[in-house]
Amino acid sequence: MKTASYAAEAAKDILHPYTIERRELHDKDVLIEIDYCGVCHTDLHFVNNDWGMTEYPVVPGHEIVGKITEVGSSVSKFKVGDTAAIGCMVNACGKCASCETGNEQYCHAGFTATYNSPIDDPGGFTYGGYSQRIVADESFILKIPVNLELTGTAPLLCAGITTYSPLQHWSVTKGMKVGVVGLGGLGHMGVKFAHAMGAHTVMITTTPEKGNDAKSLGADQVLVSTDTDAMAKEVGEFDFILNTIPVDHKIDPYLDLLKVDGTMCVVGAVEPLSQVNAAQLMFGRKKLAGSLIGGIQQTQDMLNFCGEHNIISDVEVIRMNQIQEAFERLVKSDVKYRFVIDMKSISAA
Amino acid sequence: MKTASYAAEAAKDILHPYTIERRELHDKDVLIEIDYCGVCHTDLHFVNNDWGMTEYPVVPGHEIVGKITEVGSSVSKFKVGDTAAIGCMVNACGKCASCETGNEQYCHAGFTATYNSPIDDPGGFTYGGYSQRIVADESFILKIPVNLELTGTAPLLCAGITTYSPLQHWSVTKGMKVGVVGLGGLGHMGVKFAHAMGAHTVMITTTPEKGNDAKSLGADQVLVSTDTDAMAKEVGEFDFILNTIPVDHKIDPYLDLLKVDGTMCVVGAVEPLSQVNAAQLMFGRKKLAGSLIGGIQQTQDMLNFCGEHNIISDVEVIRMNQIQEAFERLVKSDVKYRFVIDMKSISAA
Repeated sequence: MKTASYAAEAAKDILHPYTIERRELHDKDVLIEIDYCGVCHTDLHFVNNDWGMTEYPVVPGHEIVGKITEVGSSVSKFKVGDTAAIGCMVNACGKCASCETGNEQYCHAGFTATYNSPIDDPGGFTYGGYSQRIVADESFILKIPVNLELTGTAPLLCAGITTYSPLQHWSVTKGMKVGVVGLGGLGHMGVKFAHAMGAHTVMITTTPEKGNDAKSLGADQVLVSTDTDAMAKEVGEFDFILNTIPVDHKIDPYLDLLKVDGTMCVVGAVEPLSQVNAAQLMFGRKKLAGSLIGGIQQTQDMLNFCGEHNIISDVEVIRMNQIQEAFERLVKSDVKYRFVIDMKSISAA
Repeated sequence: MKTASYAAEAAKDILHPYTIERRELHDKDVLIEIDYCGVCHTDLHFVNNDWGMTEYPVVPGHEIVGKITEVGSSVSKFKVGDTAAIGCMVNACGKCASCETGNEQYCHAGFTATYNSPIDDPGGFTYGGYSQRIVADESFILKIPVNLELTGTAPLLCAGITTYSPLQHWSVTKGMKVGVVGLGGLGHMGVKFAHAMGAHTVMITTTPEKGNDAKSLGADQVLVSTDTDAMAKEVGEFDFILNTIPVDHKIDPYLDLLKVDGTMCVVGAVEPLSQVNAAQLMFGRKKLAGSLIGGIQQTQDMLNFCGEHNIISDVEVIRMNQIQEAFERLVKSDVKYRFVIDMKSISAA
């Protein structure tokens, strides 16, 4: 895996374009010394150029937590010494209907992603959190509740908001039956959130062995999707299903589980689903939806919610020079449930 | 087309199981002498057993209008001489969450369809509107506003409610931009309804020649989906799209047209859609939905709306003995926009 190893090299060698070596802090800019950065599957897709859009050199990483070491002259929300976070976005137009309603993730002009997005100042492309430091406008910086442990907080910035946002958008609450399909980085957060929101939370998995883990994460029930009898009993029972499976898969059995007017939201599969039975949507006015991360205010709300409910990700902390092994294990879903890089290790990478 | 001709034979020869020859009127039953019955593509699917579920002999027809000639002892909403209608359902459990909320079309026990559904009294299966008369409980009988011409009213009972229901459910109104994909029996009603609801109504069609017809039906704009430049200009512009295409098709170009949080509702394609790009749903929190006819109260609301706005279907009236030719033309979409059978012609069929 030459490209994965390339990412480690990049993280070690390339000057971060947002660091003060490359750009003086703007009035509203905040400089963060990065403590930890989560490893998202998207990072690997970019490293491997799976989506044909990577601009090398790429420095991945959009689950970033650290300490503020410098602030621009007009920064009002943060001060040096604060613990802070950056997620998947560092800018957006601020003027379109999406930005105006706090949905920067759907900015009509396209948001500036934390890595691999073109930028005017200093030019080139943004570099992400597999790095020592990062600079961004304070409006894209998040506050971290003081009670949250930092390594487990990092993945909240992508895996967390990606699952919290649809659960919150579709008003998941007590009295609802909610399914979470797939138990990985996203799924394990989905279970924690749906449970904390008060829903009867059902882990839906192909792997019976994951049942105990799911229950310890907060699942009230485990439904094994390969057990046709168990699935048949649950037809028409679910108000909402969060589908975190990251690849094409047969979605019909999950649509069957929805109640009339129920919604299944896909947050994992960015590749085309090879078959959707429209009749299953018709017979119950069901919805197949998608959702992408969340807006900045909603991300802050999610972090505050995590503070109130003591929710963090389950993580395995690695050193920078373990990134290649981590990528290899990620492909095999061999992680419970998110790798997080200790960025203090970068100088030794 | 032996089966199509069989349907004509059936309509002529088979005693309708709901007629008084077969069942005495229950206290709440209403007997309707049928004047006109619309020809829905579903009728042909059942005649041909396309869905593998036809119970022969089948008498199709679920767009039924006529005059009440007899009522049961406890009927309170109707009297002899009233003009009345029956749509796709003649019964439902009345007790489930769907029935209790006026969504009998999603009855958990399955509604009793106007034809080809099992019934206890008199046993066997229901027979539909290609017939002289029909009996049903008054709670499944609709009133027809006096100003509506009857031949054009018949298709409202399926094509009408199938398109009205999702437009109403997704709150289509003034200030919204609404697309209707496909200009057939369903699509032409979708255009009329969306326009009457005040939306900026766009007929989306592969066939530029249909543009003038669409405008005369009420479309404010015509978008030719094979014109890539025109389609590109409309990306992200639509609040809601009603998709009436009756077969599998590439839906990605239509999802592109939706705004953030927009919905495309499929009402035509009962066969599986061979590809849905979940990423298109994600990048904009879009929804792909389905919808099936409508509840009884909503069907009455639709008829009342048609009365207020003088909306009927554009129809071509045929005699019973022309049904085979009509089915053949239906397959070629050679009808503007719905065949309606004059049931007085049945004795000569």
